[in-house]
Amino acid sequence: AEYILHIPTVLNNLGPILPSFKLCTFGETSLLYIIRKALTEEKQVSTKTSAADLVTETDQFVENLIISALKEKFPSHRFIGEESTAAGSKCVLTDSPTWIIDPVDGTCNFVHRFPTVAVSIGFAVNQELEFGVIYHCTEERLYTGRRGQGAFCNEKRLQVSKETDISKALILTEIGPKRDPETLKLFLSNMERLLKAQAHGVRVIGSATLALCHLASGAADAYYQFGLHCWDLAAATVIIREAGGTVIDTSGGPLDLMSCRVIAAGTKEMAMFVAQEIQTIDYRRDDEN
Amino acid sequence: AEYILHIPTVLNNLGPILPSFKLCTFGETSLLYIIRKALTEEKQVSTKTSAADLVTETDQFVENLIISALKEKFPSHRFIGEESTAAGSKCVLTDSPTWIIDPVDGTCNFVHRFPTVAVSIGFAVNQELEFGVIYHCTEERLYTGRRGQGAFCNEKRLQVSKETDISKALILTEIGPKRDPETLKLFLSNMERLLKAQAHGVRVIGSATLALCHLASGAADAYYQFGLHCWDLAAATVIIREAGGTVIDTSGGPLDLMSCRVIAAGTKEMAMFVAQEIQTIDYRRDDEN
Repeated sequence: AEYILHIPTVLNNLGPILPSFKLCTFGETSLLYIIRKALTEEKQVSTKTSAADLVTETDQFVENLIISALKEKFPSHRFIGEESTAAGSKCVLTDSPTWIIDPVDGTCNFVHRFPTVAVSIGFAVNQELEFGVIYHCTEERLYTGRRGQGAFCNEKRLQVSKETDISKALILTEIGPKRDPETLKLFLSNMERLLKAQAHGVRVIGSATLALCHLASGAADAYYQFGLHCWDLAAATVIIREAGGTVIDTSGGPLDLMSCRVIAAGTKEMAMFVAQEIQTIDYRRDDEN
Repeated sequence: AEYILHIPTVLNNLGPILPSFKLCTFGETSLLYIIRKALTEEKQVSTKTSAADLVTETDQFVENLIISALKEKFPSHRFIGEESTAAGSKCVLTDSPTWIIDPVDGTCNFVHRFPTVAVSIGFAVNQELEFGVIYHCTEERLYTGRRGQGAFCNEKRLQVSKETDISKALILTEIGPKRDPETLKLFLSNMERLLKAQAHGVRVIGSATLALCHLASGAADAYYQFGLHCWDLAAATVIIREAGGTVIDTSGGPLDLMSCRVIAAGTKEMAMFVAQEIQTIDYRRDDEN
């Protein structure tokens, strides 16, 4: 029971889009079991866009499992996955029903056995995010959100923080894959600006999706990042919005899922404050590859 | 059962020092239950040395509970506690048997209901750390270490990472309570130096004791901080050393429990590398108050 991933049950309950699909069980084995087992083993690590942008065989294996299982059930759907994209697949969001998948978010944590690792699966139709599922692989926490129907952690309804005052705020961010001196300077300068604005603290936990889940649960007041990807954002965006939160572009304008940048907050005021404080770090768009 | 803190059992097994003491159960209520319940409630928050140095009624209540229970059993022992010190008690380590207590480590997380919060209890005799117990309040993880007898997370023996190469390392740190511009500049510059040295990443989780437990478990390769206190270090130091790790002063010399600064690492090489990279941030010693 410990190793049964709840995603199937949740997906089964997500309505007409997913009538009876068991996503993650393969005989006696489940996706979660595969990831948890791999977490304890020595890993073959490769790098992608930078020395800090890691990938393991597990990322690729899990993504293939998810996509091939979904493809069988939904042959006409499209798929955007972190590892498929790295392998050269086009990363373009069309009006077609599209699954947006991060098989192992927090890969660097995963490599180090640092227990903050998640599977993230979002689903969009007509370029609108319909639902999202994020599973914290080492704790028993399943975050779900469906447009118009609320967001949950396990059975508990999620509600964002109502904080508008930065001096009472806990802020989350991630470093991002680029590590050239100019990027690091901007990353650190952004953190400095928020700390100088008297934020209670800044946390960096190594998983964008789980940080965004903390935001959805009200455990933090804002999240910002440059250099994350649509597969980090898709599921979490639905969950945060359904928990009452705001997800916008770092410019303060509407979110662009492919722009590799985001601010999420419990309140619009907090999101706009962060937008005004931080400086832009340039990353290539996901759909420009 | 979910709310029973395992500390009593562990302390019972810690040998002659603690023959049959039930630390944390008060009738039907346990320490863990008190903290978990408080985690879900609105809190009365006060500040101590800075706007980012928070304290709640729970910190004070839990510390009083722990100390008064221990005092009844060990009337001749001395106690150093975070909140007693804040209230004016002397923070001096003598040769007497001394309990060193952080009732709620990660108070800022606690205030925000960010689920990374721990109770830390260390014990020293003749100024030598004898054992340490750290409980992660929202997960079922109890970290223990006793001098000469190993370190454990629940029943699993802990073993630090053997990594010596910074370019394969995950580094942990915390911001610390001081937030003046000069301190922030040094804090961010230290992070920059390690990222420029190609560390895989830097994590800031908001609890020094739990970060040090991750280090003990091999999930990270080094931890450094200026501005932490003896109650953040006492229990964790035993646990890390018993897991095979190194705990030293930021100068590269021996640890001084009262100096408010530390480097911990899986290997001596990694600890010395970090010592050479980082710049000192001045904090007053714990025993200078």
